[in-house]
Amino acid sequence: MLRLLLKEIRHNPLLWLLVFVPVVFAGEKLAPDSHTLLFVLSVLAIVPLAALLSHATESVAAKTGDSVGGLLNATLGNLTELVIALTALRAGQYMLVKASIAGAIVANTLFMLGASFLLGGLKHHVQEYNRAGARFQAGLLFLATIALLVPSAIAQADRAPEGFTETLSLCLAVLLIVAYALGMLFSLKTHRDFFGSAEHAEAGEAPWPLRLALGTLAGVTVLVALVSEVFVASVQEAAVAFGMTPAFVGFIIVALVGGAAEMASAFSGARKNRLDLSVGIALGSASQIALFVAPVLVLLSYVMGPAPMTLEFWPGAVVMMLIATITAGSVTNSGRSAWFVGVLVLMVYLIFAMTLYLLPPQVR
Amino acid sequence: MLRLLLKEIRHNPLLWLLVFVPVVFAGEKLAPDSHTLLFVLSVLAIVPLAALLSHATESVAAKTGDSVGGLLNATLGNLTELVIALTALRAGQYMLVKASIAGAIVANTLFMLGASFLLGGLKHHVQEYNRAGARFQAGLLFLATIALLVPSAIAQADRAPEGFTETLSLCLAVLLIVAYALGMLFSLKTHRDFFGSAEHAEAGEAPWPLRLALGTLAGVTVLVALVSEVFVASVQEAAVAFGMTPAFVGFIIVALVGGAAEMASAFSGARKNRLDLSVGIALGSASQIALFVAPVLVLLSYVMGPAPMTLEFWPGAVVMMLIATITAGSVTNSGRSAWFVGVLVLMVYLIFAMTLYLLPPQVR
Amino acid sequence: MLRLLLKEIRHNPLLWLLVFVPVVFAGEKLAPDSHTLLFVLSVLAIVPLAALLSHATESVAAKTGDSVGGLLNATLGNLTELVIALTALRAGQYMLVKASIAGAIVANTLFMLGASFLLGGLKHHVQEYNRAGARFQAGLLFLATIALLVPSAIAQADRAPEGFTETLSLCLAVLLIVAYALGMLFSLKTHRDFFGSAEHAEAGEAPWPLRLALGTLAGVTVLVALVSEVFVASVQEAAVAFGMTPAFVGFIIVALVGGAAEMASAFSGARKNRLDLSVGIALGSASQIALFVAPVLVLLSYVMGPAPMTLEFWPGAVVMMLIATITAGSVTNSGRSAWFVGVLVLMVYLIFAMTLYLLPPQVR
Repeated sequence: MLRLLLKEIRHNPLLWLLVFVPVVFAGEKLAPDSHTLLFVLSVLAIVPLAALLSHATESVAAKTGDSVGGLLNATLGNLTELVIALTALRAGQYMLVKASIAGAIVANTLFMLGASFLLGGLKHHVQEYNRAGARFQAGLLFLATIALLVPSAIAQADRAPEGFTETLSLCLAVLLIVAYALGMLFSLKTHRDFFGSAEHAEAGEAPWPLRLALGTLAGVTVLVALVSEVFVASVQEAAVAFGMTPAFVGFIIVALVGGAAEMASAFSGARKNRLDLSVGIALGSASQIALFVAPVLVLLSYVMGPAPMTLEFWPGAVVMMLIATITAGSVTNSGRSAWFVGVLVLMVYLIFAMTLYLLPPQVR
Repeated sequence: MLRLLLKEIRHNPLLWLLVFVPVVFAGEKLAPDSHTLLFVLSVLAIVPLAALLSHATESVAAKTGDSVGGLLNATLGNLTELVIALTALRAGQYMLVKASIAGAIVANTLFMLGASFLLGGLKHHVQEYNRAGARFQAGLLFLATIALLVPSAIAQADRAPEGFTETLSLCLAVLLIVAYALGMLFSLKTHRDFFGSAEHAEAGEAPWPLRLALGTLAGVTVLVALVSEVFVASVQEAAVAFGMTPAFVGFIIVALVGGAAEMASAFSGARKNRLDLSVGIALGSASQIALFVAPVLVLLSYVMGPAPMTLEFWPGAVVMMLIATITAGSVTNSGRSAWFVGVLVLMVYLIFAMTLYLLPPQVR
Repeated sequence: MLRLLLKEIRHNPLLWLLVFVPVVFAGEKLAPDSHTLLFVLSVLAIVPLAALLSHATESVAAKTGDSVGGLLNATLGNLTELVIALTALRAGQYMLVKASIAGAIVANTLFMLGASFLLGGLKHHVQEYNRAGARFQAGLLFLATIALLVPSAIAQADRAPEGFTETLSLCLAVLLIVAYALGMLFSLKTHRDFFGSAEHAEAGEAPWPLRLALGTLAGVTVLVALVSEVFVASVQEAAVAFGMTPAFVGFIIVALVGGAAEMASAFSGARKNRLDLSVGIALGSASQIALFVAPVLVLLSYVMGPAPMTLEFWPGAVVMMLIATITAGSVTNSGRSAWFVGVLVLMVYLIFAMTLYLLPPQVR
């Protein structure tokens, strides 16, 4: 088994970067204050881990079908986001938790989806994918956006009294988890036939055996989580050194690096004309963060946090999530894609990134 | 003729509840202050009337085609809403009028549509319905939402002077009625061919003769209206006894009971795989309230009310109507449905209901 | 060549109005203060020029295909808007520049599109057009709306500091121009095959030779621009004489007269069942104003204006552009049209026009 893994590493130069994984942990012990160095090292270490994860997921997907594989990938890929958010939750940094949640949703629905369309479209004239899967995920995402919109909208419109937002957030969190569970029941059990692939993939690399693939998925995810913690600890101070605002770091940088593993899978799927896999990872991951990770964090804040966390977000973040959801919903409506669709979606993301980059620190 | 009606009543245990209709009127005379009792009695009386209405409508629909039948049903079904609103209008209770209008639109587009999809989907794997009909109704509803949005948005954004909102509301009311009339011309005359059913219905119960069906429709609607008045008079104080907020009562309870008759028809249509009928009733009823009942009330307020009524709504109500319209529009876009679509739509309604239930009395 | 042009003029009574073109210029010299007279004369002069432009464009379109012809028309047609805006820019009247931009976008997406659907639908039962072209333009328009929405939303939500909006507007202007250029590359080069016509046109009038058509296009556009300047100089004071508010004049009157040339082409295309041409002109023109004219004006304000112009709009204008974009996007989603679709779209425009007409002068 391990021989197969080593063979893979020998043939793929990208995986040679795996050497940075122990270097990061060593660096953390030896020079815990060199934030800029730790930041660069942790990014370099996450990239090959993401690549490994990508190959392992594709091996499992090859045996279980693209949709289930995509779901699996999204589930494990978001462990990173969950670990980051839990660390911040325990420290009571609710603004950071919310920024990383909102940023991850926006990055998945716009950057990951848009870049998949662009990368796939540069290689293939037109790409088709399963509309039903995209519609399903967009529907879940829409529900979550409504749930995040209502507390913010009502709280603004009516100056709601104390306690109202906490109770409402708790109820909404339970509702979202129920919706997510019913969604799994629908897509994996009662209407599994809806979510087949639109067209067959090119023959890729030989898939790993299921046990090696699953083992690699689990082990590498843990490593990604550990390296991500170093990354998060260093990113804020490194950002200041590079001249970036906290809003930009929370929404853009953390989300992009936190989702690097899934992006590698999604992009490679798009290049191989398996756009079902890419769309499944991008929207599936976004809806999982919105309907599972975020509500679980609200519930856990009652156990682990210093105070209850609410689902009330900064209005700008709600606007961005709403626009991202609408964009993803209308773009995936046709089940067809070409490179310019990717450009349009990426441009929307760029508008957000620009705005956050230029927003001065004291504002957010 | 009456023998057929009596035979129907003998075979359907639900219709035995009709005995509560005279009981409600007796109760109103004998104990006009037992609000909680009158509330329970009136709900018990509305249920069998709704069932009768459902069977009569289906009989007419069987002879005229689902779309016309749906329209007919929506027209008569909304008499309840119109009567309730007119009573409140005469008393100058404009907040209650607007809450019942907004609540009825939201209940029809989300609860009735969602529950139809869910109930139909639990029995049938996938259901198809006429996209054209749904798109048409969603378009009308979208226009109405814009008309309700603009006065609220402009009045907020610019602190408009006195008299502006009254004049604008009057113009918008006329415009909406014209749009509604042209819509009828389109769907019933020039492009009637667009609105045929997507698939044929199962053979249901034997339809009544047209005259009995029409007579029952008219008579039972009057009874529903009379019982509804008792219901409205008792619901506010009964709600306080049950611990509910006025916002929740106005938006959710009044709308659900007021629409009980149409819901019975819509749900029975969905179970019989006649989703065209269900979608037609749900969206047709919502668009009729928005484009006909609401504007007519504005016009009548100049004749019957103490002061002109405007189309300016509480911002939270506008947000809910907007979300409801967008949800209905995107969900009916494909012309296909499965049970989870119903769950998603119902969840959006649940989010609204939760928020209104938790909103403390002094806020609204 | 000129003989063909004169023959055309002799056979088309509408073109006899061309006599008003020199009359306008004479009037401007002799009675520069008779604003109401100059206003009427300039409108009378623009109509025949618009008609000529329409025939010339159709001749070119007949030789190059509808989509390219539509693009060409939109490009030259918007010269009017650009010239008007540049004159106002040089004078530092940024409110007027922005009102004419927003008004032109809304007039093209709602009035021109809606009237095309209505006029075409009154003659043909159902009309089909190329969905891909409409989706492409709606996508561009959506991107531009997001770009105009974000500075306004963020600036409101967070009270951004000075300089932020200027820098952000500059970045967004560059981004929009890049998106527009990539869009041209996509629609004219890499995916040209997507944008063919859905059905073939009826044989219209005999097309002009390409050189005459191109010459007329260029020459008449210049005349339109010159007459438009007289029109703009007189419209404000004439409007006051007719009792209209400045908001109504800026958004509705200027935009309708400024787009008269394109409207003539779009409407004639719709009547001839060439709805691809109409949709291409309407949405193509709107997206060109949003993604090319507006950003270019921002860039030119650094060179020609007294101060940098931003992309921050009056909130009411942003709401109208957003609604217009969403309306156009959902209406063109099906690729089919009937007369009532036109009514719905025109009604949305009417709601805006009514609101602006009633809005008192001191408010805007």
